[in-house]
Amino acid sequence: MQKGTELYRGKAKTVFTTDSEHLLILEFRNDTSAFDGEKIEQLDRKGEVNNKFNHFIMQKLEEAGVKTQVQELLSDTESLVKKLDMIPVECVVRNFAAGSLCRRLGVEEGLELKPPTFEFFLKNDALHDPMVNESHITGFKWATEQQIEKMKSLSHAVNGILSPLFATGGMLLVDFKLEFGVDENGDIILGDEFTPDGCRLWDSNTRKKLDKDRFRQGLGSVVESYIEVANRIGLEL
Amino acid sequence: MQKGTELYRGKAKTVFTTDSEHLLILEFRNDTSAFDGEKIEQLDRKGEVNNKFNHFIMQKLEEAGVKTQVQELLSDTESLVKKLDMIPVECVVRNFAAGSLCRRLGVEEGLELKPPTFEFFLKNDALHDPMVNESHITGFKWATEQQIEKMKSLSHAVNGILSPLFATGGMLLVDFKLEFGVDENGDIILGDEFTPDGCRLWDSNTRKKLDKDRFRQGLGSVVESYIEVANRIGLEL
Repeated sequence: MQKGTELYRGKAKTVFTTDSEHLLILEFRNDTSAFDGEKIEQLDRKGEVNNKFNHFIMQKLEEAGVKTQVQELLSDTESLVKKLDMIPVECVVRNFAAGSLCRRLGVEEGLELKPPTFEFFLKNDALHDPMVNESHITGFKWATEQQIEKMKSLSHAVNGILSPLFATGGMLLVDFKLEFGVDENGDIILGDEFTPDGCRLWDSNTRKKLDKDRFRQGLGSVVESYIEVANRIGLEL
Repeated sequence: MQKGTELYRGKAKTVFTTDSEHLLILEFRNDTSAFDGEKIEQLDRKGEVNNKFNHFIMQKLEEAGVKTQVQELLSDTESLVKKLDMIPVECVVRNFAAGSLCRRLGVEEGLELKPPTFEFFLKNDALHDPMVNESHITGFKWATEQQIEKMKSLSHAVNGILSPLFATGGMLLVDFKLEFGVDENGDIILGDEFTPDGCRLWDSNTRKKLDKDRFRQGLGSVVESYIEVANRIGLEL
């Protein structure tokens, strides 16, 4: 697979073309950002850890029947992925209250949400990723009603697969963010990434934070925690 | 009907008990507030205008088959209403972009929204009435799924009744806010009020603002505009 030109540079990943029009290369960089890109740092080994973590999780999801963009691991920091027409919303499932939910609704961190909440956010740093609903998404033609329903059911399915997986490692999957895209057949496919950058994971007993909140809140040992998470679910890094 | 003790004092209305346990008296005051109560002024005749405006609109809705809380006009500033167990969310329908939608989504004021958007907001001044979705409403038990569906369909029905009514007066119903409650039979009933305090109305040709944005934006002639709106739809004030 020939790596082509840079197509898009995000806050933590760079996307490259390949010699196939249906395939792209995702490069996971060491850049770590928070607060809509206001805080950015380089963290040693993070690109490699997230690339391998993402590949591992996406494989687990594929095995459980969720179609993902990931094709194969190309190098320590690169993966070959299917090209998707990305839908510009983030899908967030929460099993416990944390982060923006607590600030928005005045809810205490750690409250268990039964059933889990589901939220859509518009991907737009300048607007600080505002929460949106189905009527905005269909009205502004970001996705169709059918695509919305599919994204919701796939997000809940991912929760049903990954919550037990992290539980085997003694962790709570507090919340997570997914992004979906449409492939050349019109199917909704899980894209972007699933790493500790885009979810919250707490030790089940101590509720110690093992995810990007360590970076946001300046708690230190960011990549070390990501590696601990990986090791606990059977991925040696 | 005997007026009893003060039950609740809101930003623009006061609620009194009556000698019937199923009836309340709503008193519309001259107080006019904006920005979660940060800007408050007394506007001459506003209580009377809003009381009569609300009664007129609620009658129109009743005639069209929407159940409302309003029983009868008691005085210039008071109405007798059915006691409801209010659901703590606001239902917002938008036919054109304005206000918080523009700020949140970076959309230009005046953009026509086809189909209209529908949004839920939590009634909570301290949290600045955050937008919420169905999963929050059911999760935090503010309403059931059936009640949510009923509030949505009634809100769209109200839009279908009132947009043509205001059109006969040469006005665009830009957006509006409704609040619902549950009566002693468990039915969802339209409560609170429908006045230019809780909707946006523009002259169809000039797009001149005729609603509470005149107060929010310091444009003057607030109550005069409310009276003009009333007169245009056949209510002489």
